[in-house]
Order: sequence, then C-alpha cells, then structure tokens
Amino acid sequence: MKIIVMGCDGYIGWPLTMRLTALGYDVVGIDNYSRRERVAEVDARSATPIASPWERFTELSKRYSNFEFRFVDVCNKSQVDHLFEKHRPDAVVHLAEIPSAPYSMISQGHCIETMENNVNGTLNILWAMKKYTPDAHLIKIGTMGEYGTSNLDIPEGFMKVNYRGREDTIPFPKQASSWYHQTKVHDTNNCMFASKIWGLRITDIMQGVLYGVSTPEMMCYEGDEEEINPSLVTRFDFDEVWGTCLNRFVAQAIIDYPLTVYGEGNQTRGYLALRDSLQCLNIAIDNPPEKGEYRVFNQFDELYSVKQLAEKTKKIGAEYGLDVKIKHIPNPRIEAETHYYNPDCEKLPLLGFRPTFTLEDELRIMIPFLMKYKDRIKEYEKVIKPKPYWRT
Amino acid sequence: MKIIVMGCDGYIGWPLTMRLTALGYDVVGIDNYSRRERVAEVDARSATPIASPWERFTELSKRYSNFEFRFVDVCNKSQVDHLFEKHRPDAVVHLAEIPSAPYSMISQGHCIETMENNVNGTLNILWAMKKYTPDAHLIKIGTMGEYGTSNLDIPEGFMKVNYRGREDTIPFPKQASSWYHQTKVHDTNNCMFASKIWGLRITDIMQGVLYGVSTPEMMCYEGDEEEINPSLVTRFDFDEVWGTCLNRFVAQAIIDYPLTVYGEGNQTRGYLALRDSLQCLNIAIDNPPEKGEYRVFNQFDELYSVKQLAEKTKKIGAEYGLDVKIKHIPNPRIEAETHYYNPDCEKLPLLGFRPTFTLEDELRIMIPFLMKYKDRIKEYEKVIKPKPYWRT
Repeated sequence: MKIIVMGCDGYIGWPLTMRLTALGYDVVGIDNYSRRERVAEVDARSATPIASPWERFTELSKRYSNFEFRFVDVCNKSQVDHLFEKHRPDAVVHLAEIPSAPYSMISQGHCIETMENNVNGTLNILWAMKKYTPDAHLIKIGTMGEYGTSNLDIPEGFMKVNYRGREDTIPFPKQASSWYHQTKVHDTNNCMFASKIWGLRITDIMQGVLYGVSTPEMMCYEGDEEEINPSLVTRFDFDEVWGTCLNRFVAQAIIDYPLTVYGEGNQTRGYLALRDSLQCLNIAIDNPPEKGEYRVFNQFDELYSVKQLAEKTKKIGAEYGLDVKIKHIPNPRIEAETHYYNPDCEKLPLLGFRPTFTLEDELRIMIPFLMKYKDRIKEYEKVIKPKPYWRT
Repeated sequence: MKIIVMGCDGYIGWPLTMRLTALGYDVVGIDNYSRRERVAEVDARSATPIASPWERFTELSKRYSNFEFRFVDVCNKSQVDHLFEKHRPDAVVHLAEIPSAPYSMISQGHCIETMENNVNGTLNILWAMKKYTPDAHLIKIGTMGEYGTSNLDIPEGFMKVNYRGREDTIPFPKQASSWYHQTKVHDTNNCMFASKIWGLRITDIMQGVLYGVSTPEMMCYEGDEEEINPSLVTRFDFDEVWGTCLNRFVAQAIIDYPLTVYGEGNQTRGYLALRDSLQCLNIAIDNPPEKGEYRVFNQFDELYSVKQLAEKTKKIGAEYGLDVKIKHIPNPRIEAETHYYNPDCEKLPLLGFRPTFTLEDELRIMIPFLMKYKDRIKEYEKVIKPKPYWRT
C-alpha cells in the first residue's frame, strides 16, 4: 500500500512518516520546509534540536528502503499533479497546512497566506486525486475547533435534526474562532463537495489539541524512551504562535515560568497525545471509507479545561522537583471562556483506537524528556508571552 | 451618505450604481472590467450592446455630480486599502465577485481563480473596513444556493434547534453545489467571524436567481420603458456559463431555440427581478444593522421550478407571437432534481420590500425589449447548449 504523507517534516508529519515506514507501507513524504521558515519568522524555535530535513530523511532511508522524500509545495499545481501522476498513492495523509490560529491573526498578510496555503493546497490535492487516483483515500486533518462552542452536543460531522416538524441529517454548523480555523472549515466544505461530485473517499479528521513529543520510532532502540536519536526527534514548539496549550505549559514549567492560563481558563477542548494521533491516523488508513463516502472522525482522547491542564502540569511537575506556578493572564483571544462542551468520539474507538497512556503518564514521559532541553527553552522564553492578535 | 459599489460595471452593479446615484447618495463605483473579459473568454457576449466603461461612466457623470469611478481590483490589497482610506464610505455593496457556477466548474484553474477572487477579495474588504471604516455597513451579496436543498425549511441564516435535549440558535448548515457556491459559503463564514471579532456591521444577502434587464434609470426619459439609452443599458447574458435560468429562456424563446430544461426541471429556487434586487439593496442600505451585528436576508420574490419558468416563458411568449418549445436535456449539473424547498423571506418585506411586478408582467417587459436584439442573440446561439462541467 502506497501512502503519501504531505507535510512530512512537521510536528505530526515526521513521526507519522517514521511510523508508517516502520510498519512497512510504501511511504512518499513531501514537504516544502515552510514550517521551519514560519517558526523562524516569529523568532521562535523548537525546544528539541531537530535535524535538517536532509539529515532526517537520510537517516530514515538508511534504515528502510520503503521511504522516499519529494520536495513539493502543495500550492504548486504542477508539482502536486506530477506527484500523483508518478506515485499513484492508495492513501494520502494531508498535513501540509499552516496549523496556527495566532499566526493567521497576526496581520492581513498572514490571514491571506494561511487561507491560500490551506484552501488552495487542499483543492490542488482534490483535483489531482480526481485526475490520477479517483479511488485513493484522502485523510484530511481538520480540527475540533471547526465546531466552535455552541450549547449543543457535537456529533461526528453530521446531526439528525427535527426543524419545524421536518427531519434531516445535516452537517453540524461550524463556528470557528480564527482565520486558521476558518480555513479548516472551508476545507471541510470543499472536501464534502469534491467527494459528492467526484466520488472521492475522504476521511475528515476533526482532531483535538495534540501534546507530547517522543514516539518509539525516534528512539535509538525501539521501546527505549531514554535514548533519543538526534536525527529523528520531532519538533516541539512552545512559543505563543506555534506551541499548543499543554506543550507550552510543560516548557514553561521546566524553566520556572508561570503557566499562562488565558482568561478564566474554563475553555474546554479535546486533547490527544501525539503518539495516539499516529495510532488514529493508522486506523483511518487501514479502514478506508467506501467509494464516494465522506466521513468525519472526531479524534481526541479526553476533555480538559485549560485550568485543569495547568493543574495536571503542576501536579506531575512536582514529581520532578518543579515548583510550578499558575498565572491567569488577560485572554489574547476572543473566545467563550465558559461554555458547554460534549463532543462525540465513537467511530475511532469502534475501529480499535485505545489511548496508550493517561495524560498524567504522558506528562511523566514529556517532562523528563524535555528537561534535557531546559537551556534551549530558557533562551527563547521571550516568545512565550501571547500577543493580543485578536484584539488589535 | 457615501456608498461604494464594488463591481459597478456588472449586471446588477451598473443599474444599482445608477439607482443610488439618481437617489442622491454619494456613489463611488469600482470595477476592474473582469466580467467583460471572462464573458469574452467563453466566446459569449451580452445580448444588449453595452457601452464601454468609459462611455457609461461619462454618461452618468454628465447627469449627476455625485458619482465617480475608480479602477480597483478587489484582490489588490493596496488598491482596496487606498480606496477605503480616501473615501471612508458609510456603506459598501460588494458585488465584485465571479458569479457563475458553471465558470467555476470548467477546470482546476477556473475553480481556484473563482476561489481566490471571491474569498480574498472579501477578506481585503473586511480588513480595509476594520482599518479605516469600522462603523461602515457591508452589504455582501451571497446566494440562496449556499443553503442547498436539504429536507428542511430554510430560515434567514440562523435556526433555533433542539438537539439531544439542548437548545441553541446556530447558523443554518450550508450544502453548496458548485465551487462558485462554495466561495460564497466561505465568504459567509469569514464575514460572520469578522463581524464577531471586529464589531463590523454586515448584511449578508442570500439572493435568489435574478432575471430582467431594464430599470427606469437606463431609459432616456425616466419611466419610459420604450426608449433605452444605449450608453446606460446593462448587460444581459444568455449563454450557458453566465446566463441565469429565466434570462436564458427568454433569449432562447426569441430565437426559436427550444428552452433547455436541465433534467426533470423540478429544481426549485427563489427568483427576483433585477429591478427588485435594486429595491432590496436600497432597503438594506437605508436600514443598517447595529454595530457588531451580522444579519442574513433571504432576498427573493417567488419560488419557481425550472419547468414552471419554461411554461411561463412559453405562455407569455405566445402573446408576442413566439412559438416556444420546451426540451428536457440531460442535466449538466449534479444536483437534486426533485426536492423540498421552503425558504423564509420575512425580513425584507418587514422593512418595506414590495415586488414591483409579477413575473409574468416582467416577462411582458423583457420579451419585447429583448426582441430588438434577436440578431445579436441568434449570432451567438452556439453558446447556449450547456457543457457537462460537473461530470467531466
């Protein structure tokens, strides 16, 4: 089975590429290194010292013959067409998007850049699939953030409603809260339409917020969590633009920086460990939808409020001698700070998804792992404090 | 009151510009003439011989001192910024979009072009309003086609639902059926978000399918429907890419071309006369929403199926000696041919909207008016037959 991983140099893309390669799929990774450039643009850097793309891909290729890399920009129609025409994948995991809400809110230029990269990139992939691989399976990474925080339960994509006495099953309406999240909503609408008119198989993943850094494949010896292979470690961003909430808290805890809880901290989301995201994506790959089927998976493990995540970080941090402080700061975002939140997550567990560790146990892996990079985090602590992009 | 009409050279934009100018608003019209270019691109032309932009704008300027024209491409950020900075409008009517479903389906290039023009153009306008005129009122033209054809009543933008025992008022979910319609859905989502974070006043118009050609302002003497001023007449497209359904039928009837009913012809939509669209937009301008309010108007007069429109054209055509034939042809589109359709239209009537004529009476104006251009239509009859863009 041949799989294209688009965005194979990213936080998820790289460990996913290693996982799928190790499992024996024929993997073609593509990237244009733009994540590295955009992180540098905001003066941030990964806590983990990641290898150059060349070093990464060479190291993986030394171990496995079933991996190859191609430099492709998803916004370049010719490059995408050529990729599909030449490699004819059975499945495509599309991670080649700009994944940051704050980044998309920095300026008009960042808004339009995120819009064009994400929406046009996905369209180029959909068109290439129509032309060259109409039976292939697209696994598109969206976000739970597409749904927003209405007062309703959140189903997996579609809801059966009775409205004024009539019934239908309709897409759950999206209320996204950043330009980035809007691009994912647009992608969702475009994917649903492409599946309908062209008969494409599409799994649209509404993913929760990821956390974690190490996966077995980046260790020198499989299963040995102590010895990381410096050529294989994935990136770990902790700055206000690229760092996700729990990852940011762990980095802050390590350098004795009070955890920055935005506002009340009752904002509740679904969270998922990086290693479990790989497990879920693998399940999606192995269980493709029918021809012409567009399906939605809500992909997360547990729900936490920001405040609860801070408390967890404080509690587990103490086991490693960290005296973690928590500080509520004015919310740089415009979002509901207290809201109802009850999303479904049934489809992936039915297909076999079982979380590997509890969040606390994953913190027990993350904290000692990242303590080795304390100096690198400390050196960049200036990029932790959020800027109020939503309000300027 | 200063109003910017974006897309002032178009089918609606031009008569709207004349209407608002005649009513005494300070009007700044902007366009980049791209509609003319894109109609020529598909080898079509307007049934009415429209004047050059220069001739049009000069003729209007001769009559009124409160009109001026600026060449602006809405996709050019600097041009849009400069426009808002200099003119500081109270209201903006945004018609500067590529308005054709078939055009957006021709190829990948046409899909992306429509996406970028419409989505980025609207984003540039939203950002310019945020920067220069945060209290101004944006009247954004969307389409009833955003809603699709679910089994439910269609409210004006938002629906109150009870789902699994919990209640909320949520956006009515969109299920659009072409890339063009998708761009309008993306616009809607972007406008709703911009209004929320920046406090913009936005009226999002879900407009039905327009028909008609003459409005009082393009006559030599106001109210005299016989004498058209050749410098002021608006465009009238009848080809398969740019012509709307009833307009296409009238043109076909005039040249004895069997009316092309797509498939069963039970596809039902809301329809509105061009002159009444101007009336509605004027009402929206005169009744702006509150600061930070995003509201949706469903804007149409009556519902008709395609088959009913063909029958109406046949009936009224006979009054003018036309022997109209009706031909069902394979549907070039992918759409439900039989479906429930019951959209609300309450807000505009509450604000005073009253349709000017019945559809039959408007046909009695259109048919003799367009019979004068029979030879021009006949000469371009080759562009009437639809191509199956949805299916290739």
